[in-house]
Amino acid sequence: MEKNQSTGNDALAAPAVSVDIVLLTLIDKKLQVALVKSRSSYLNGQLALIGGTVHPDEDKTLDHAVHRILAKRGGLKKIFVEQLYTFGSRDRDDRGWSVSVAYYGLLPITELEKNEQELTFYPVDKLPKLPFDHKKIVNTAVERVRGKGGYSTIPARLLGQKFSMLQMKQIYSAVLGEEIDMAAFRRKVLSLGIVRTTNEKVRLGRATRPSELFELVPGVVNFDSRI
Amino acid sequence: MEKNQSTGNDALAAPAVSVDIVLLTLIDKKLQVALVKSRSSYLNGQLALIGGTVHPDEDKTLDHAVHRILAKRGGLKKIFVEQLYTFGSRDRDDRGWSVSVAYYGLLPITELEKNEQELTFYPVDKLPKLPFDHKKIVNTAVERVRGKGGYSTIPARLLGQKFSMLQMKQIYSAVLGEEIDMAAFRRKVLSLGIVRTTNEKVRLGRATRPSELFELVPGVVNFDSRI
Repeated sequence: MEKNQSTGNDALAAPAVSVDIVLLTLIDKKLQVALVKSRSSYLNGQLALIGGTVHPDEDKTLDHAVHRILAKRGGLKKIFVEQLYTFGSRDRDDRGWSVSVAYYGLLPITELEKNEQELTFYPVDKLPKLPFDHKKIVNTAVERVRGKGGYSTIPARLLGQKFSMLQMKQIYSAVLGEEIDMAAFRRKVLSLGIVRTTNEKVRLGRATRPSELFELVPGVVNFDSRI
Repeated sequence: MEKNQSTGNDALAAPAVSVDIVLLTLIDKKLQVALVKSRSSYLNGQLALIGGTVHPDEDKTLDHAVHRILAKRGGLKKIFVEQLYTFGSRDRDDRGWSVSVAYYGLLPITELEKNEQELTFYPVDKLPKLPFDHKKIVNTAVERVRGKGGYSTIPARLLGQKFSMLQMKQIYSAVLGEEIDMAAFRRKVLSLGIVRTTNEKVRLGRATRPSELFELVPGVVNFDSRI
Protein backbone atom coordinates (compact mmCIF):
# COMPACT_ATOMS: atom_id res chain seq x y z
CA MET A 1 0.00 0.00 0.00
CA GLU A 2 2.98 2.32 -0.28
CA LYS A 3 2.25 3.31 -3.82
CA ASN A 4 -0.93 4.88 -4.96
CA GLN A 5 -2.87 2.54 -7.18
CA SER A 6 -2.96 5.18 -9.88
CA THR A 7 0.76 4.77 -10.44
CA GLY A 8 -0.03 1.36 -11.89
CA ASN A 9 -0.09 2.54 -15.48
CA ASP A 10 3.51 3.51 -16.03
CA ALA A 11 6.65 1.40 -16.29
CA LEU A 12 5.75 -0.19 -12.95
CA ALA A 13 2.43 -1.48 -14.26
CA ALA A 14 0.54 -3.66 -11.81
CA PRO A 15 1.06 -7.37 -12.45
CA ALA A 16 -1.52 -9.12 -14.61
CA VAL A 17 -3.82 -11.18 -12.38
CA SER A 18 -5.40 -14.41 -13.53
CA VAL A 19 -7.04 -17.39 -11.87
CA ASP A 20 -6.22 -20.93 -12.95
CA ILE A 21 -8.21 -23.99 -11.91
CA VAL A 22 -6.90 -27.53 -11.52
CA LEU A 23 -10.14 -29.42 -12.06
CA LEU A 24 -9.68 -33.03 -11.04
CA THR A 25 -11.84 -36.06 -11.63
CA LEU A 26 -11.46 -39.80 -11.57
CA ILE A 27 -11.48 -41.61 -14.93
CA ASP A 28 -10.39 -45.24 -15.32
CA LYS A 29 -9.42 -45.25 -11.63
CA LYS A 30 -6.90 -42.49 -12.31
CA LEU A 31 -6.84 -38.94 -11.10
CA GLN A 32 -7.14 -36.79 -14.22
CA VAL A 33 -7.02 -33.05 -14.82
CA ALA A 34 -9.24 -31.03 -17.16
CA LEU A 35 -7.44 -29.02 -19.83
CA VAL A 36 -8.81 -26.62 -22.44
CA LYS A 37 -7.53 -25.18 -25.68
CA SER A 38 -6.50 -21.69 -24.74
CA ARG A 39 -8.36 -18.88 -26.49
CA SER A 40 -5.53 -16.40 -26.03
CA SER A 41 -3.75 -15.37 -29.23
CA TYR A 42 -0.49 -15.67 -27.32
CA LEU A 43 -1.03 -19.39 -26.62
CA ASN A 44 -2.50 -20.11 -30.04
CA GLY A 45 -4.82 -22.93 -29.05
CA GLN A 46 -2.35 -24.77 -26.81
CA LEU A 47 -3.80 -26.97 -24.07
CA ALA A 48 -3.72 -25.23 -20.70
CA LEU A 49 -5.48 -25.18 -17.35
CA ILE A 50 -8.96 -23.69 -17.28
CA GLY A 51 -8.29 -20.07 -16.41
CA GLY A 52 -8.46 -16.45 -17.37
CA THR A 53 -7.75 -12.96 -16.19
CA VAL A 54 -9.77 -11.33 -13.47
CA HIS A 55 -12.31 -8.95 -15.03
CA PRO A 56 -12.54 -6.01 -12.65
CA ASP A 57 -15.83 -4.92 -14.19
CA GLU A 58 -17.55 -8.33 -13.87
CA ASP A 59 -15.96 -10.18 -10.98
CA LYS A 60 -16.72 -9.16 -7.44
CA THR A 61 -14.14 -11.48 -5.88
CA LEU A 62 -11.49 -13.99 -6.93
CA ASP A 63 -13.96 -16.81 -6.20
CA HIS A 64 -16.48 -15.15 -8.51
CA ALA A 65 -13.87 -15.01 -11.28
CA VAL A 66 -13.27 -18.74 -10.82
CA HIS A 67 -16.94 -19.61 -11.10
CA ARG A 68 -17.47 -17.28 -14.07
CA ILE A 69 -14.62 -18.99 -15.92
CA LEU A 70 -15.76 -22.53 -14.98
CA ALA A 71 -19.22 -21.70 -16.33
CA LYS A 72 -17.85 -20.18 -19.52
CA ARG A 73 -15.22 -22.77 -20.38
CA GLY A 74 -16.77 -25.94 -19.03
CA GLY A 75 -20.45 -25.21 -18.58
CA LEU A 76 -19.76 -26.06 -14.95
CA LYS A 77 -21.82 -24.68 -12.10
CA LYS A 78 -21.71 -25.14 -8.34
CA ILE A 79 -18.37 -26.88 -8.43
CA PHE A 80 -16.45 -27.48 -5.20
CA VAL A 81 -13.29 -25.38 -5.41
CA GLU A 82 -10.68 -24.33 -2.89
CA GLN A 83 -7.90 -21.82 -3.24
CA LEU A 84 -4.62 -23.65 -3.67
CA TYR A 85 -1.69 -21.24 -3.85
CA THR A 86 -0.75 -18.01 -5.57
CA PHE A 87 2.09 -18.11 -8.05
CA GLY A 88 3.57 -14.74 -8.91
CA SER A 89 6.83 -13.81 -10.56
CA ARG A 90 8.59 -11.84 -13.20
CA ASP A 91 9.47 -15.00 -15.10
CA ARG A 92 6.37 -17.18 -15.30
CA ASP A 93 5.03 -15.31 -18.33
CA ASP A 94 7.36 -13.82 -20.97
CA ARG A 95 5.07 -10.83 -21.30
CA GLY A 96 5.83 -9.51 -17.82
CA TRP A 97 5.10 -9.77 -14.11
CA SER A 98 2.08 -11.96 -13.60
CA VAL A 99 0.15 -13.47 -10.74
CA SER A 100 -1.94 -16.61 -10.95
CA VAL A 101 -4.23 -17.36 -8.05
CA ALA A 102 -4.58 -21.12 -8.43
CA TYR A 103 -7.60 -23.12 -7.30
CA TYR A 104 -8.33 -26.80 -7.35
CA GLY A 105 -11.72 -28.36 -7.86
CA LEU A 106 -13.01 -31.90 -7.59
CA LEU A 107 -16.04 -33.30 -9.28
CA PRO A 108 -17.53 -36.66 -10.14
CA ILE A 109 -17.17 -37.67 -13.77
CA THR A 110 -20.95 -38.16 -13.83
CA GLU A 111 -21.35 -34.42 -13.34
CA LEU A 112 -19.04 -33.73 -16.22
CA GLU A 113 -20.98 -35.94 -18.56
CA LYS A 114 -24.06 -33.82 -17.98
CA ASN A 115 -22.33 -30.72 -19.24
CA GLU A 116 -21.76 -29.33 -22.67
CA GLN A 117 -18.08 -28.72 -22.46
CA GLU A 118 -14.81 -28.44 -24.29
CA LEU A 119 -12.63 -30.14 -21.73
CA THR A 120 -10.08 -32.85 -22.35
CA PHE A 121 -8.59 -34.96 -19.59
CA TYR A 122 -5.09 -36.16 -18.90
CA PRO A 123 -3.85 -38.35 -16.03
CA VAL A 124 -2.00 -36.08 -13.60
CA ASP A 125 1.18 -38.09 -14.07
CA LYS A 126 1.00 -38.02 -17.89
CA LEU A 127 0.54 -34.38 -18.73
CA PRO A 128 1.11 -32.93 -22.18
CA LYS A 129 3.32 -29.88 -22.60
CA LEU A 130 1.66 -27.03 -20.72
CA PRO A 131 2.31 -23.28 -20.85
CA PHE A 132 3.79 -21.12 -18.09
CA ASP A 133 4.08 -22.97 -14.77
CA HIS A 134 0.85 -24.92 -15.27
CA LYS A 135 2.57 -28.25 -14.71
CA LYS A 136 3.87 -27.03 -11.36
CA ILE A 137 0.38 -25.81 -10.48
CA VAL A 138 -1.09 -29.26 -11.26
CA ASN A 139 1.57 -30.94 -9.14
CA THR A 140 0.88 -28.59 -6.25
CA ALA A 141 -2.84 -29.42 -6.45
CA VAL A 142 -2.24 -33.16 -6.54
CA GLU A 143 0.08 -32.91 -3.55
CA ARG A 144 -2.54 -30.94 -1.63
CA VAL A 145 -5.35 -33.36 -2.42
CA ARG A 146 -3.14 -36.36 -1.60
CA GLY A 147 -2.05 -34.72 1.63
CA LYS A 148 -5.63 -34.01 2.61
CA GLY A 149 -6.86 -37.35 1.35
CA GLY A 150 -5.83 -39.22 4.42
CA TYR A 151 -7.69 -37.10 6.88
CA SER A 152 -10.55 -35.37 5.12
CA THR A 153 -13.75 -36.01 3.24
CA ILE A 154 -12.46 -33.87 0.38
CA PRO A 155 -11.70 -36.81 -1.96
CA ALA A 156 -15.32 -37.91 -1.51
CA ARG A 157 -16.21 -34.88 -3.66
CA LEU A 158 -15.14 -37.04 -6.57
CA LEU A 159 -18.08 -39.33 -5.84
CA GLY A 160 -21.70 -38.74 -6.73
CA GLN A 161 -24.07 -37.83 -3.92
CA LYS A 162 -24.68 -41.51 -3.18
CA PHE A 163 -22.00 -44.15 -3.42
CA SER A 164 -21.13 -47.65 -2.41
CA MET A 165 -18.35 -48.41 0.05
CA LEU A 166 -16.37 -49.98 -2.81
CA GLN A 167 -16.66 -46.81 -4.91
CA MET A 168 -15.52 -44.74 -1.96
CA LYS A 169 -12.54 -47.01 -1.35
CA GLN A 170 -11.56 -46.77 -5.03
CA ILE A 171 -11.60 -42.99 -4.86
CA TYR A 172 -9.39 -42.84 -1.78
CA SER A 173 -7.10 -45.42 -3.27
CA ALA A 174 -6.75 -43.41 -6.50
CA VAL A 175 -6.23 -40.14 -4.68
CA LEU A 176 -3.67 -41.53 -2.25
CA GLY A 177 -2.04 -43.54 -5.00
CA GLU A 178 -1.95 -46.71 -2.90
CA GLU A 179 -3.91 -49.91 -2.45
CA ILE A 180 -6.30 -49.91 0.50
CA ASP A 181 -7.66 -52.98 2.23
CA MET A 182 -11.44 -53.06 1.75
CA ALA A 183 -12.42 -54.51 5.13
CA ALA A 184 -10.17 -52.14 7.08
CA PHE A 185 -11.39 -49.17 5.02
CA ARG A 186 -15.03 -50.00 5.65
CA ARG A 187 -14.45 -50.40 9.37
CA LYS A 188 -12.53 -47.14 9.62
CA VAL A 189 -14.98 -45.05 7.61
CA LEU A 190 -17.95 -46.33 9.58
CA SER A 191 -16.22 -45.85 12.91
CA LEU A 192 -15.27 -42.27 12.01
CA GLY A 193 -18.92 -41.46 11.39
CA ILE A 194 -18.24 -39.61 8.14
CA VAL A 195 -20.81 -41.53 6.07
CA ARG A 196 -24.29 -42.81 6.75
CA THR A 197 -26.49 -45.26 4.91
CA THR A 198 -29.20 -43.98 2.58
CA ASN A 199 -31.12 -47.23 3.04
CA GLU A 200 -30.96 -47.66 -0.73
CA LYS A 201 -29.31 -50.43 -2.68
CA VAL A 202 -28.29 -50.70 -6.31
CA ARG A 203 -26.65 -53.38 -8.41
CA LEU A 204 -23.35 -51.96 -9.66
CA GLY A 205 -21.57 -53.25 -12.77
CA ARG A 206 -21.47 -57.00 -12.91
CA ALA A 207 -21.99 -57.49 -9.19
CA THR A 208 -24.27 -60.35 -8.23
CA ARG A 209 -25.61 -58.68 -5.12
CA PRO A 210 -26.91 -55.12 -4.79
CA SER A 211 -24.67 -52.69 -2.92
CA GLU A 212 -25.72 -50.49 -0.06
CA LEU A 213 -25.52 -46.79 -0.91
CA PHE A 214 -24.01 -44.27 1.50
CA GLU A 215 -23.82 -40.51 1.65
CA LEU A 216 -21.55 -38.09 3.49
CA VAL A 217 -22.68 -36.89 6.89
CA PRO A 218 -23.06 -33.14 6.36
CA GLY A 219 -20.61 -30.93 8.18
CA VAL A 220 -17.86 -33.48 8.68
CA VAL A 221 -14.85 -32.34 6.70
CA ASN A 222 -11.72 -33.21 8.58
CA PHE A 223 -10.85 -36.05 10.82
CA ASP A 224 -7.72 -36.79 12.70
CA SER A 225 -6.96 -40.36 11.80
CA ARG A 226 -5.54 -41.44 8.49
CA ILE A 227 -7.80 -43.64 6.39
CA MET B 1 -5.20 -15.56 -20.19
CA GLU B 2 -8.04 -14.47 -22.46
CA LYS B 3 -7.13 -10.81 -22.45
CA ASN B 4 -3.86 -9.43 -23.55
CA GLN B 5 -1.89 -7.99 -20.67
CA SER B 6 -1.59 -4.70 -22.51
CA THR B 7 -5.30 -4.06 -22.06
CA GLY B 8 -4.58 -3.52 -18.38
CA ASN B 9 -4.38 0.26 -18.60
CA ASP B 10 -7.93 1.19 -19.55
CA ALA B 11 -11.16 1.01 -17.56
CA LEU B 12 -10.44 -2.67 -16.94
CA ALA B 13 -7.16 -1.91 -15.20
CA ALA B 14 -5.44 -4.91 -13.69
CA PRO B 15 -6.08 -5.20 -9.95
CA ALA B 16 -3.50 -3.65 -7.64
CA VAL B 17 -1.36 -6.41 -6.13
CA SER B 18 0.11 -6.16 -2.67
CA VAL B 19 1.56 -8.56 -0.13
CA ASP B 20 0.62 -8.37 3.54
CA ILE B 21 2.44 -10.20 6.31
CA VAL B 22 0.97 -11.39 9.60
CA LEU B 23 4.14 -11.48 11.66
CA LEU B 24 3.48 -13.33 14.91
CA THR B 25 5.53 -13.58 18.04
CA LEU B 26 4.98 -14.54 21.65
CA ILE B 27 5.05 -11.73 24.23
CA ASP B 28 3.82 -12.18 27.81
CA LYS B 29 2.70 -15.71 26.90
CA LYS B 30 0.33 -14.28 24.30
CA LEU B 31 0.39 -14.58 20.54
CA GLN B 32 0.89 -11.05 19.23
CA VAL B 33 0.96 -9.54 15.76
CA ALA B 34 3.34 -6.89 14.45
CA LEU B 35 1.73 -3.72 13.10
CA VAL B 36 3.30 -0.67 11.49
CA LYS B 37 2.20 2.89 10.85
CA SER B 38 1.28 2.87 7.20
CA ARG B 39 3.34 5.17 4.98
CA SER B 40 0.61 5.50 2.35
CA SER B 41 -1.02 8.91 2.11
CA TYR B 42 -4.36 7.11 1.81
CA LEU B 43 -4.01 5.49 5.25
CA ASN B 44 -2.46 8.57 6.83
CA GLY B 45 -0.30 6.80 9.41
CA GLN B 46 -2.93 4.31 10.55
CA LEU B 47 -1.67 1.05 12.05
CA ALA B 48 -1.78 -1.78 9.53
CA LEU B 49 -0.15 -5.10 8.72
CA ILE B 50 3.38 -4.96 7.37
CA GLY B 51 2.85 -4.89 3.64
CA GLY B 52 3.19 -3.08 0.37
CA THR B 53 2.60 -3.33 -3.33
CA VAL B 54 4.61 -5.66 -5.51
CA HIS B 55 7.29 -3.68 -7.33
CA PRO B 56 7.57 -5.27 -10.76
CA ASP B 57 10.96 -3.66 -11.32
CA GLU B 58 12.54 -4.85 -8.06
CA ASP B 59 10.76 -8.05 -7.02
CA LYS B 60 11.42 -11.26 -8.87
CA THR B 61 8.70 -13.23 -7.10
CA LEU B 62 5.97 -12.70 -4.50
CA ASP B 63 8.28 -14.20 -1.87
CA HIS B 64 10.95 -11.69 -2.80
CA ALA B 65 8.45 -8.86 -2.35
CA VAL B 66 7.67 -10.20 1.13
CA HIS B 67 11.32 -10.30 2.16
CA ARG B 68 12.05 -6.85 0.66
CA ILE B 69 9.20 -5.36 2.68
CA LEU B 70 10.15 -7.20 5.90
CA ALA B 71 13.67 -5.85 5.56
CA LYS B 72 12.51 -2.32 4.83
CA ARG B 73 9.79 -1.96 7.46
CA GLY B 74 11.11 -4.14 10.24
CA GLY B 75 14.82 -4.59 9.54
CA LEU B 76 13.99 -8.28 9.47
CA LYS B 77 16.01 -10.78 7.49
CA LYS B 78 15.74 -14.52 7.00
CA ILE B 79 12.33 -14.72 8.59
CA PHE B 80 10.29 -17.93 8.31
CA VAL B 81 7.22 -17.06 6.22
CA GLU B 82 4.58 -19.14 4.51
CA GLN B 83 1.93 -18.05 2.07
CA LEU B 84 -1.42 -17.94 3.82
CA TYR B 85 -4.23 -17.05 1.43
CA THR B 86 -4.97 -14.55 -1.30
CA PHE B 87 -7.72 -12.05 -0.69
CA GLY B 88 -9.03 -10.32 -3.79
CA SER B 89 -12.18 -8.36 -4.41
CA ARG B 90 -13.76 -5.22 -5.71
CA ASP B 91 -14.72 -4.13 -2.21
CA ARG B 92 -11.73 -4.62 0.07
CA ASP B 93 -10.19 -1.28 -0.96
CA ASP B 94 -12.34 1.75 -1.82
CA ARG B 95 -9.92 2.69 -4.57
CA GLY B 96 -10.77 -0.30 -6.73
CA TRP B 97 -10.16 -3.99 -7.35
CA SER B 98 -7.25 -5.17 -5.27
CA VAL B 99 -5.49 -8.38 -4.46
CA SER B 100 -3.52 -9.05 -1.29
CA VAL B 101 -1.36 -12.14 -1.21
CA ALA B 102 -1.17 -12.72 2.54
CA TYR B 103 1.72 -14.43 4.31
CA TYR B 104 2.29 -15.31 7.91
CA GLY B 105 5.61 -15.36 9.66
CA LEU B 106 6.74 -16.55 13.06
CA LEU B 107 9.73 -15.37 14.95
CA PRO B 108 11.13 -15.43 18.46
CA ILE B 109 10.86 -12.13 20.32
CA THR B 110 14.61 -12.36 20.94
CA GLU B 111 15.14 -11.96 17.19
CA LEU B 112 12.97 -8.87 17.16
CA GLU B 113 14.90 -7.25 19.96
CA LYS B 114 18.04 -7.45 17.88
CA ASN B 115 16.52 -5.37 15.13
CA GLU B 116 16.13 -1.68 14.68
CA GLN B 117 12.47 -1.57 13.87
CA GLU B 118 9.28 0.42 13.90
CA LEU B 119 6.94 -2.39 14.83
CA THR B 120 4.30 -2.34 17.53
CA PHE B 121 2.61 -5.45 18.84
CA TYR B 122 -0.96 -6.26 19.73
CA PRO B 123 -2.39 -9.53 21.08
CA VAL B 124 -4.24 -11.23 18.23
CA ASP B 125 -7.49 -11.13 20.18
CA LYS B 126 -7.16 -7.43 21.07
CA LEU B 127 -6.51 -5.74 17.77
CA PRO B 128 -6.90 -2.02 17.21
CA LYS B 129 -8.95 -0.77 14.26
CA LEU B 130 -7.23 -1.98 11.10
CA PRO B 131 -7.74 -0.89 7.47
CA PHE B 132 -9.20 -2.97 4.64
CA ASP B 133 -9.69 -6.64 5.61
CA HIS B 134 -6.52 -6.77 7.73
CA LYS B 135 -8.42 -8.06 10.77
CA LYS B 136 -9.77 -10.95 8.72
CA ILE B 137 -6.26 -11.66 7.43
CA VAL B 138 -4.92 -11.81 11.01
CA ASN B 139 -7.74 -14.16 12.03
CA THR B 140 -7.04 -16.42 9.07
CA ALA B 141 -3.36 -16.59 10.04
CA VAL B 142 -4.12 -17.38 13.67
CA GLU B 143 -6.53 -20.11 12.62
CA ARG B 144 -3.90 -21.58 10.32
CA VAL B 145 -1.17 -21.55 12.97
CA ARG B 146 -3.53 -22.99 15.60
CA GLY B 147 -4.67 -25.67 13.17
CA LYS B 148 -1.09 -26.59 12.37
CA GLY B 149 0.05 -26.23 15.95
CA GLY B 150 -1.18 -29.59 17.00
CA TYR B 151 0.67 -31.58 14.41
CA SER B 152 3.66 -29.59 13.25
CA THR B 153 6.88 -28.08 14.44
CA ILE B 154 5.80 -24.72 13.02
CA PRO B 155 5.01 -23.12 16.40
CA ALA B 156 8.53 -24.00 17.48
CA ARG B 157 9.66 -21.21 15.12
CA LEU B 158 8.60 -18.88 17.89
CA LEU B 159 11.41 -20.30 20.02
CA GLY B 160 15.07 -19.46 19.80
CA GLN B 161 17.37 -22.10 18.33
CA LYS B 162 17.78 -23.74 21.74
CA PHE B 163 14.99 -24.00 24.25
CA SER B 164 13.93 -25.79 27.38
CA MET B 165 11.02 -28.21 27.41
CA LEU B 166 9.08 -25.73 29.55
CA GLN B 167 9.60 -22.94 27.01
CA MET B 168 8.44 -25.25 24.23
CA LYS B 169 5.35 -26.23 26.17
CA GLN B 170 4.52 -22.57 26.82
CA ILE B 171 4.74 -21.80 23.10
CA TYR B 172 2.40 -24.65 22.13
CA SER B 173 0.05 -23.73 24.92
CA ALA B 174 -0.08 -20.10 23.75
CA VAL B 175 -0.51 -21.04 20.10
CA LEU B 176 -3.22 -23.61 20.78
CA GLY B 177 -4.84 -21.36 23.34
CA GLU B 178 -5.15 -24.14 25.89
CA GLU B 179 -3.37 -25.45 28.95
CA ILE B 180 -1.09 -28.42 28.30
CA ASP B 181 0.07 -30.91 30.93
CA MET B 182 3.85 -30.66 31.25
CA ALA B 183 4.61 -34.33 31.86
CA ALA B 184 2.41 -35.53 29.01
CA PHE B 185 3.84 -32.88 26.67
CA ARG B 186 7.41 -33.87 27.47
CA ARG B 187 6.68 -37.56 26.93
CA LYS B 188 4.89 -36.91 23.63
CA VAL B 189 7.52 -34.58 22.18
CA LEU B 190 10.34 -36.94 23.06
CA SER B 191 8.51 -39.99 21.71
CA LEU B 192 7.77 -38.17 18.41
CA GLY B 193 11.47 -37.56 17.93
CA ILE B 194 11.01 -33.93 16.90
CA VAL B 195 13.55 -32.51 19.35
CA ARG B 196 16.95 -33.63 20.57
CA THR B 197 19.10 -32.59 23.46
CA THR B 198 21.95 -30.14 22.89
CA ASN B 199 23.69 -31.47 26.02
CA GLU B 200 23.66 -27.92 27.33
CA LYS B 201 21.95 -26.61 30.44
CA VAL B 202 21.06 -23.10 31.56
CA ARG B 203 19.39 -21.64 34.58
CA LEU B 204 16.19 -19.91 33.41
CA GLY B 205 14.46 -17.14 35.37
CA ARG B 206 14.21 -17.92 39.05
CA ALA B 207 14.57 -21.67 38.60
CA THR B 208 16.67 -23.38 41.24
CA ARG B 209 17.96 -26.07 38.90
CA PRO B 210 19.42 -25.58 35.41
CA SER B 211 17.21 -26.71 32.51
CA GLU B 212 18.28 -29.00 29.72
CA LEU B 213 18.28 -27.26 26.33
CA PHE B 214 16.81 -28.91 23.24
CA GLU B 215 16.80 -28.12 19.55
CA LEU B 216 14.56 -29.21 16.68
CA VAL B 217 15.62 -32.28 14.75
CA PRO B 218 16.20 -30.89 11.24
CA GLY B 219 13.78 -32.01 8.56
CA VAL B 220 10.89 -32.95 10.83
CA VAL B 221 8.02 -30.61 10.10
CA ASN B 222 4.79 -32.49 10.37
CA PHE B 223 3.72 -35.32 12.55
CA ASP B 224 0.47 -37.15 12.72
CA SER B 225 -0.40 -37.08 16.36
CA ARG B 226 -1.74 -34.08 18.14
CA ILE B 227 0.47 -32.69 20.89
